[in-house]
Amino acid sequence: MRISEVQTPALVIEGAIAQQNIAAMAAALPGTRLRPHMKATKCTSLAREQVRAGHTTFTCATPREVVGMVKAGVGDDLLLANECVDSIRLQEMAALQDNALITVAIDSEETLQAAHAAGIQHVLIDVNVGLPRCGIAPELAGSLADKARSLGKTVRGVMGYEGHLMMVADHSERLAKVEACMTLLRSAANDVGGDIISAGGTGTYNLHDNTGVTEIQAGSYSLMDTQYAQLGLPFTQAVFVIGTVISSSTQWAVIDVGLKSLGMDHGNPSIDGHAVWFCSDEHTTFSPNEGAPPKVGTRIRVIPAHVDPTVAQHDAAWVVNGDDVIDRWAIDLRGW
Amino acid sequence: MRISEVQTPALVIEGAIAQQNIAAMAAALPGTRLRPHMKATKCTSLAREQVRAGHTTFTCATPREVVGMVKAGVGDDLLLANECVDSIRLQEMAALQDNALITVAIDSEETLQAAHAAGIQHVLIDVNVGLPRCGIAPELAGSLADKARSLGKTVRGVMGYEGHLMMVADHSERLAKVEACMTLLRSAANDVGGDIISAGGTGTYNLHDNTGVTEIQAGSYSLMDTQYAQLGLPFTQAVFVIGTVISSSTQWAVIDVGLKSLGMDHGNPSIDGHAVWFCSDEHTTFSPNEGAPPKVGTRIRVIPAHVDPTVAQHDAAWVVNGDDVIDRWAIDLRGW
Repeated sequence: MRISEVQTPALVIEGAIAQQNIAAMAAALPGTRLRPHMKATKCTSLAREQVRAGHTTFTCATPREVVGMVKAGVGDDLLLANECVDSIRLQEMAALQDNALITVAIDSEETLQAAHAAGIQHVLIDVNVGLPRCGIAPELAGSLADKARSLGKTVRGVMGYEGHLMMVADHSERLAKVEACMTLLRSAANDVGGDIISAGGTGTYNLHDNTGVTEIQAGSYSLMDTQYAQLGLPFTQAVFVIGTVISSSTQWAVIDVGLKSLGMDHGNPSIDGHAVWFCSDEHTTFSPNEGAPPKVGTRIRVIPAHVDPTVAQHDAAWVVNGDDVIDRWAIDLRGW
Repeated sequence: MRISEVQTPALVIEGAIAQQNIAAMAAALPGTRLRPHMKATKCTSLAREQVRAGHTTFTCATPREVVGMVKAGVGDDLLLANECVDSIRLQEMAALQDNALITVAIDSEETLQAAHAAGIQHVLIDVNVGLPRCGIAPELAGSLADKARSLGKTVRGVMGYEGHLMMVADHSERLAKVEACMTLLRSAANDVGGDIISAGGTGTYNLHDNTGVTEIQAGSYSLMDTQYAQLGLPFTQAVFVIGTVISSSTQWAVIDVGLKSLGMDHGNPSIDGHAVWFCSDEHTTFSPNEGAPPKVGTRIRVIPAHVDPTVAQHDAAWVVNGDDVIDRWAIDLRGW
């Protein structure tokens, strides 16, 4: 099958580039030093490539990701790096604890009790290291771990996501800020115990040599987007949304890629050699930097500004090698 | 079932409010004066309510919407108000022409030929009235209609979407600009012939009394969003995304509603009585205007900034009356 035969809009992954990204990360953070994050890709087929590269532990943002990974038989140590008080979903995960080591993040008495009531055995203390989101205050982490142990839980350690630092442009400033956050996390880890100190993401994966962190939670690196590309990381854009020109005038052209096939929170997507004017529900209007707009029927590659919510809009990705389609990967972990 | 039993994030429609919106629009634009747009709701169950209110003609943005409406038996006159050169999808629609009157918009020789090759019988000329997107230049519309007729097509008329005017804040300025656009459309209609002059949207539905337009394509009015609410229209917010607080600190709380359950192109969603700080993939961080942040487990209603791409993120909507769930409507026309 040729890429020209795929109906648009279509999520397309350059297989060789994704493999290069996966290999580059596996060289930098081999085996369990990386706990690849499934929220970016929501695709067990891609996770299998990460297993082939040597990773066995995975990070998930939703119970559906955890359950889907276990059912697909991918990974043997799955961390729900997010809080959950949904008893049904916690029970679904608990029912799979014989099939994989499942660990659930907690940051409060309520999330501990919910996990406990559902029969979750392994927990990890989520620590706030500066991003105003989930995570317990570092000085309270030890106390929550004690409560968890008093309920018979196994406390595997701590995590602390420095998500507010991913896009700090200057490398040395980013490094200094990451190290300050990780001082908080190490302090909490001392109080909590356990073997795991988990942190990081694609934007800070290479800043943890001296932070004491045992593993990095990065996901976007395998596919990339225009925002992460600004950081000059050794990963290359591997994912695109392909559209077809459906209308063309003397000044602009329109493709069938719009708000419903793109994540828009980081702004407009990009098109090489063209200026993107705006996106509508089912369209993107754009014009070439030089020459006439492309004709009706032309295929156009759109580069997403934010990979995670873009991938989540699609039910499958077409894996290509040049113009040849070599596989179709279901985005089987999307939804909730 | 109670709304508190629904797993989150969940798309929720206040059934009575949606009915009021549908009734208010049907009073203003009864029967075929409104051609409800399915791109906003992508839900045949909601379209059935619009049929009960007297509408029989519908606007679609994608072939999937057209095919889904025919297969659901909703509406008897379906307009694909968008260009398509996908031969497979055009053939899928053509195969259903005995079941409903299906009309496909064209704005070029290429889109005419694609529709013709697939066996589409009814076309409508999409005219550019100022929005830089699809649509042929008004002065060329008659010539394209002639070509269509020479191929044996039935040309039903014209459409011209003044989408660039939907959010012009001042009513009289909006009215004047709409009338100027519609002068272009009427001129094209004179050249094209046919019975239909189709235009408009929720933001301009009440500005067409003297424009010569025969029908309005509005969809968002039934559910509404925070952006359209700024226009002071007689429609009330009927759709929400319900989340559960999963983490709460002294200064903020976090719910399980994020970029993947919201359309973000119009910016952050709103929460009554609270300030939204930011949205992440699976989270929204927010704080109350007064008092302490809500506790873990609290249900929170999020008001989307843009209804169309928000609805398209969900596979179903829960229809509620107060705290009671009265129905579950599949968002069965999403995807492509």
